[in-house]
Amino acid sequence: MARVWNFSAGPAALSEEVLRQAQSELLDWNGTGASVMELSHRGRHFIALAEEAERDLRELLAVPAHYKVLFLQGGATQHFAQIPMNLAADGQGADYIVTGHWSEKALKESAPYVKARVAASSAAQQYTRLPPRAEWDLDPRAAYVHLTTNETIHGVEFRDIPDVGDVPLVADMSSDILSAPLDVGRFGLIYAGAQKNIGPSGLVVMIVREDLLARRPRPLPKIFRYAEHAAQGSMLNTPNTWGWYIAGLTFKWLKAQGGLAAMAERNRRKAELLYACIDGSGGYYRNPVDPAARSRMNVPFTLHDGALDKPFLEASERAGLMALKGHKAVGGMRASLYNAVPLQAVEALVAFMRDFMQRHG
Amino acid sequence: MARVWNFSAGPAALSEEVLRQAQSELLDWNGTGASVMELSHRGRHFIALAEEAERDLRELLAVPAHYKVLFLQGGATQHFAQIPMNLAADGQGADYIVTGHWSEKALKESAPYVKARVAASSAAQQYTRLPPRAEWDLDPRAAYVHLTTNETIHGVEFRDIPDVGDVPLVADMSSDILSAPLDVGRFGLIYAGAQKNIGPSGLVVMIVREDLLARRPRPLPKIFRYAEHAAQGSMLNTPNTWGWYIAGLTFKWLKAQGGLAAMAERNRRKAELLYACIDGSGGYYRNPVDPAARSRMNVPFTLHDGALDKPFLEASERAGLMALKGHKAVGGMRASLYNAVPLQAVEALVAFMRDFMQRHG
Repeated sequence: MARVWNFSAGPAALSEEVLRQAQSELLDWNGTGASVMELSHRGRHFIALAEEAERDLRELLAVPAHYKVLFLQGGATQHFAQIPMNLAADGQGADYIVTGHWSEKALKESAPYVKARVAASSAAQQYTRLPPRAEWDLDPRAAYVHLTTNETIHGVEFRDIPDVGDVPLVADMSSDILSAPLDVGRFGLIYAGAQKNIGPSGLVVMIVREDLLARRPRPLPKIFRYAEHAAQGSMLNTPNTWGWYIAGLTFKWLKAQGGLAAMAERNRRKAELLYACIDGSGGYYRNPVDPAARSRMNVPFTLHDGALDKPFLEASERAGLMALKGHKAVGGMRASLYNAVPLQAVEALVAFMRDFMQRHG
Repeated sequence: MARVWNFSAGPAALSEEVLRQAQSELLDWNGTGASVMELSHRGRHFIALAEEAERDLRELLAVPAHYKVLFLQGGATQHFAQIPMNLAADGQGADYIVTGHWSEKALKESAPYVKARVAASSAAQQYTRLPPRAEWDLDPRAAYVHLTTNETIHGVEFRDIPDVGDVPLVADMSSDILSAPLDVGRFGLIYAGAQKNIGPSGLVVMIVREDLLARRPRPLPKIFRYAEHAAQGSMLNTPNTWGWYIAGLTFKWLKAQGGLAAMAERNRRKAELLYACIDGSGGYYRNPVDPAARSRMNVPFTLHDGALDKPFLEASERAGLMALKGHKAVGGMRASLYNAVPLQAVEALVAFMRDFMQRHG
């Protein structure tokens, strides 16, 4: 069938140009006579690909020279555990800013490697706002402060990153990395599962300040030490070569789109269009999030009558709008508007929503 | 260019049929209007794919019902560490059978989670043979016995799996899984990085006896506990969906080839052809491995004069024979003959080797 507009929260839409290129060279990449999946990660062809992807990512995000870029595995979830393994000694504390499902999970998975402490939380507001910086109770002796910049389920996002002083800021940016320019220098460590704004699942991109790699808080096998991965150019063991390749194509595509400033503008327009439709529906559609905290990437919304959910989902699928079902934790609908979702898709969604409202008024 | 014959040790050759199918449906999988990479792992389409892949693998290997099949990440190397994390309590011992580079590495990465003990080793013979079972010094109280069934660098392989009594046998089968029928019931746990006989890198397939999942030797984050992955059908977090998909296509392809008995026969013929060429070259080509221990998957060989290495590699590349350079640990050449390498490729290699010997005699 024709390509649909894909609003999946992840694994999510990829750029069609990226997919077409991957398709065209699937059996013969770069004149090697083999698929990129069939090449040794230690051969010159793949090494060149890997280095170019890193260079392009560094250029897109203006990554300072004293940060390492790693291409890892395990999903962000594994790094919820592996980050404290690497950064915190037994008995040491770390501060967590809890703003939704994913920061809750990061907190839970950090045990038994750190004494995680909730320094701020919006749980009491059902994660419909962000805890104001003035209310954060930070410990200056903490090993790090952990932040989830965007919550895919609750649809809240830090658009401005609060200052946390000298304690290294560790940020899970799985769902909004590369959606806008970023001042990497304000972070100690940034990590992101690829399956939203970077590429396919099974790849994690990490950007980490070199001084943090020098921490050796406990004996660890090499495979769990970020410093070892950094020393080996993320080839301590066989990386996810296909994921790295698709990420590299995506970085090239982002550069061709005008880079992150252009993406930020496009993402702003997409989100504004959808929020305007929701807010202008006279309560037919509702998004519960404080406007100042609303995510540009994931827009959860409910219909005024839950009995309409099923007809809405069925009609949207028939209209070529895929994966709008909301997460069970908040119910209703969710539209994810990552980089690879074009403005045209959001226009189609908004037109559908207006039409549905008229027909089921 | 035309497809080459690919002898890479991994990531390695994939079946051309599998690649062609992946190519044809890259932008629209199964009538969804989206790439398989763009689908939620929790949606009904991907769940059906995932379950079918597991069913096919179970059928191919006749996996008994009291074993779980897991689709994980991290490469076999991560599981060198994660297996003792899951199976051994602090201070408990485990026996390692050391037969080459990879079993050495499995032993090293097991610290600090288990007291690993070398129960047998062929290091003194430069890993050119396997330590006879009669000489193994096994501890009946060990948490497990670890074995690497095939060593990709040294080219030795256990064709018959020795009996180790009641202690669970844990086997890294990364490079020979699915190359022949297997009695899974003799193992406690089998694991394999996908990038040799299963699919692309970034995926690990694990087959584990249920009673081992009940061990809880230490507090662990959920993401490191195999039991949690098993309870969630390998969807505790987002799996490598592309890897799982290609693995599924490969399992279907293996079934269409006649299953593992047919593959074993094909692999036997391929290996015999190459070893016969080496052994019949009057010392021009040499393989140092005890014939009883020779790997059917990875055939390392040297030329009688190291000065010929460079011309051999250059001429082989021109002849469309890719990735024959040996690992630096043993030097010379290596031809990996995994399932997806057809007999025709080995015939082409042998013809090239004979011709090269005549021209550079």
